[in-house]
Amino acid sequence: MSEQRMTAARWYQARDIRVERIAVPALGDPHQVKVKVAACGICGSDLHEYAAGPIFIPVDSPHPLSHDRAPIVMGHEFAGEVVDVGSAVTRVAVGDRVAIEPILSPHRDGAYLMERYNLSPQLGFHGLSGGGGGFAEYTVVGEHMVHRLPDALSYEQGALVEPAAVGLHAVRQSSLKAGDSAVVFGAGPIGLMVIESLKAAGAASIHAVEVSAARKQRASKLGAVVHDPTEATSWSGSWRPAMAASTSPSRSPACPPCSTRRSPAATPAARR
Amino acid sequence: MSEQRMTAARWYQARDIRVERIAVPALGDPHQVKVKVAACGICGSDLHEYAAGPIFIPVDSPHPLSHDRAPIVMGHEFAGEVVDVGSAVTRVAVGDRVAIEPILSPHRDGAYLMERYNLSPQLGFHGLSGGGGGFAEYTVVGEHMVHRLPDALSYEQGALVEPAAVGLHAVRQSSLKAGDSAVVFGAGPIGLMVIESLKAAGAASIHAVEVSAARKQRASKLGAVVHDPTEATSWSGSWRPAMAASTSPSRSPACPPCSTRRSPAATPAARR
Repeated sequence: MSEQRMTAARWYQARDIRVERIAVPALGDPHQVKVKVAACGICGSDLHEYAAGPIFIPVDSPHPLSHDRAPIVMGHEFAGEVVDVGSAVTRVAVGDRVAIEPILSPHRDGAYLMERYNLSPQLGFHGLSGGGGGFAEYTVVGEHMVHRLPDALSYEQGALVEPAAVGLHAVRQSSLKAGDSAVVFGAGPIGLMVIESLKAAGAASIHAVEVSAARKQRASKLGAVVHDPTEATSWSGSWRPAMAASTSPSRSPACPPCSTRRSPAATPAARR
Repeated sequence: MSEQRMTAARWYQARDIRVERIAVPALGDPHQVKVKVAACGICGSDLHEYAAGPIFIPVDSPHPLSHDRAPIVMGHEFAGEVVDVGSAVTRVAVGDRVAIEPILSPHRDGAYLMERYNLSPQLGFHGLSGGGGGFAEYTVVGEHMVHRLPDALSYEQGALVEPAAVGLHAVRQSSLKAGDSAVVFGAGPIGLMVIESLKAAGAASIHAVEVSAARKQRASKLGAVVHDPTEATSWSGSWRPAMAASTSPSRSPACPPCSTRRSPAATPAARR
């Protein structure tokens, strides 16, 4: 059988991503699954890799887990259909619709499911650290990296599970209780996911600090009270915790006096 | 002007509550408001006072805050319309629709709003400790005890604000985070309010342990997975926290082995 080819977008260097024909990947061990990609998001990290990379992408030496280096297929926010499974796979079957958890972490003989696997010093990302990615027709991942989608979720929604998990995790890490109010600094994709997660967590009112017209409009549409620090001269209130969800410091001019402490990225703030 | 009379239900002793004509109460100080009762719930505590009281109701000596003793007007879960306000009242006006927070706590010269007023050793309840109650056409309370109802809430819903607050407080006191699962022991009115609060707080799945057919049905209708310990022989799982919401120990036979610690009343349990 002749080698099958597919279209994929590969990062070569900053401002150099090429759409090419490459070999369709095959299962590498009995615990892997092959996914036909149905939808893939473009993360802010992808934009950073394009504009100013390499950041995560291995160039000089291969990534210790993927054993791969540039050019690499990008795309780590994706969903698709399982089209092949290794002989030891039990979690999913061919035909399952799945969202991908793109974390690469150490494993041995299929013992993929580690506690705190996200804290490994070798941590990598499928779609950033090599080994394939969502900007391709097919990709191969460990079975622990796929999660079946409920029927009610589309593939496009499935592609948003990864960033949605970031927003929900931030809210879960916060002290927010149902009935509290919260403020979100930065209403880009992650900030908007934080707003959605705050709604799911029962926040009584949600405030968003943002300067971009499009993002202000979107945050408002989701139900947040929007504050633009370039327009307001004062804004008082007391919230705990406050969530900073911005990767663009230049977009966050000093905000008017408010009683929150500075928080790490995507750390929430709520008011009782 | 001759004294106005109204109908009220007063507790005299266990199994002796009388519907009588009594004087309409008048404002007693400039910080009080007079409420025309529109809806009043019957609390489990009211049933206990009827069946086996006095429990909270002062009989031998007057309550230190109401200076009142049996017979007393019952009813502490209620809502109504403000029909008169004292000269110092600022929080509400005549015509406002309000829910009542029935806590009696010490105050002086209108300084009603104390921190932790619910922890006073003199704590009493309007509708249990004397001074009026919701089982009457009119009653007089401090302005700090009324909360304006949003237009979207009916008076019947307003009457449920007090028990709903008990359920929400329990969930807020718990370690529950959006996405956790929880188990509720006892699906009476408070247990059902806990279930509603868990939904508002983003619980991913809610389990209810209950034996009464009517309560099992209601809990199931609200979306809980219902477990009847008289039917199940085993039920395994791990939740934290677990919420015990029952005032009827006889209704709670030993539950099948599960990994929760015994909790005080209305203390929640969630599973990650």
